[in-house]
Amino acid sequence: MPNNPGHTFMIATRYENMEPTGEARGLPQPPLALPAPEGAPLIPLPGIGEMEPPALSLHQAIANRRTGRRYSEQPLSLSELAYLLWATQGVQQITTRPTTLRTVPSAGSRHAFETYLLVNRVEGLEPGLYRYVALTHELAQLQTGPEKAEEITAACRNQKQILNSAVTFLWAAEVERMTWRYGDRGYRYLHLDAGHICQNLYLAGEALDCRCCAIAAFDDKALNDALGLDGEARFVTYVATLGKKVE
Amino acid sequence: MPNNPGHTFMIATRYENMEPTGEARGLPQPPLALPAPEGAPLIPLPGIGEMEPPALSLHQAIANRRTGRRYSEQPLSLSELAYLLWATQGVQQITTRPTTLRTVPSAGSRHAFETYLLVNRVEGLEPGLYRYVALTHELAQLQTGPEKAEEITAACRNQKQILNSAVTFLWAAEVERMTWRYGDRGYRYLHLDAGHICQNLYLAGEALDCRCCAIAAFDDKALNDALGLDGEARFVTYVATLGKKVE
Repeated sequence: MPNNPGHTFMIATRYENMEPTGEARGLPQPPLALPAPEGAPLIPLPGIGEMEPPALSLHQAIANRRTGRRYSEQPLSLSELAYLLWATQGVQQITTRPTTLRTVPSAGSRHAFETYLLVNRVEGLEPGLYRYVALTHELAQLQTGPEKAEEITAACRNQKQILNSAVTFLWAAEVERMTWRYGDRGYRYLHLDAGHICQNLYLAGEALDCRCCAIAAFDDKALNDALGLDGEARFVTYVATLGKKVE
Repeated sequence: MPNNPGHTFMIATRYENMEPTGEARGLPQPPLALPAPEGAPLIPLPGIGEMEPPALSLHQAIANRRTGRRYSEQPLSLSELAYLLWATQGVQQITTRPTTLRTVPSAGSRHAFETYLLVNRVEGLEPGLYRYVALTHELAQLQTGPEKAEEITAACRNQKQILNSAVTFLWAAEVERMTWRYGDRGYRYLHLDAGHICQNLYLAGEALDCRCCAIAAFDDKALNDALGLDGEARFVTYVATLGKKVE
């Protein structure tokens, strides 16, 4: 293990040091998104066209945004959750290449993330673990009950705002969807892309009178285990808690 | 050089594998920001309180944002540039810890970036290379003339939208500002944070009738050389071109 792994990574992912990518070797493009898991109940989400979008100006959203770790007891509505999912990963178009165009930019439109949700307080949803099925704007219910909240909180070094959040977003990379085109330099892009997504969550949260707290301090293995990810082909890149503002 | 440097990096930056950080070893916190370079002309920027902020709603900004590589010949005003700098790295408060609170979130409020600008078409500014002095909301003029535009374009694998942009943002990490607290896991956070910043540029650009194009495909050494960065303690993490929309 190098004792300066960050710098080592930055050097190894310079163009002159990279291996040929999957695309360069003629491998087929990975699927645009994971399919809904077999057997999981699917919950349709309110469409964006069916709701009154929040009126807050971009300027106010940027000016007022602050990280918040305390949340009110008020639940989110299912429409509010649907709005946040749209603002962070919503699919606006499928191009003929094919790629997805979404509400955030992504390197080469790779859009390598799957959004897992730990739901604590959302109207109409049982608390538990869900996955956003972006292509159909649905939620797949993976597991109900309070166990995952405890497990994910512990994996995030016991950051209690997870237990107190209305919902916690967990963005997990499907690595090959990115590295197929960009090789291991794509690990940089995964993190850049996760930053785009999380910023939209902060701002859209602000528009819904919520606070948000990004979390990247987690025990990778424990958190990946909690979501059933192997930590190599798939791993949690970024996490954010969200809930209605207190005061 | 490992042939899977991305995965190697992710494993090496798990908590259980990390070295003690500078903070844990009692080293002093690095400065909040680079001072203005000695001898460089300083250009005051219009304050945010002095301008009419753009009226676009957050919803429309998110819904309409697209990456764009073609720009009109119309220049940006200095106020518009000031607005974009505020939206991406503006300092809203200096806390007593001390840290800066800015218009984007940053891991532990580390705010490890310095913003370099390649200016092509901004009213009142000679084309050339500048650096944003965030603490005083000023621009430091580093070099005028067309040479840097050619050099930076070449370093970005000849992506011509740089030459055609009104302005190109280059976010360079001051690595120790981040790793002092987080060790080499901080290289993840640098990229996550750069994603926050760039997303705000996309959205604020949308509000000013601009298009934006994020760039992470660059030759690190050539680009760092162009900005006078050593590539180890300081390196360009992310780049984005911006200009007024065509049509």
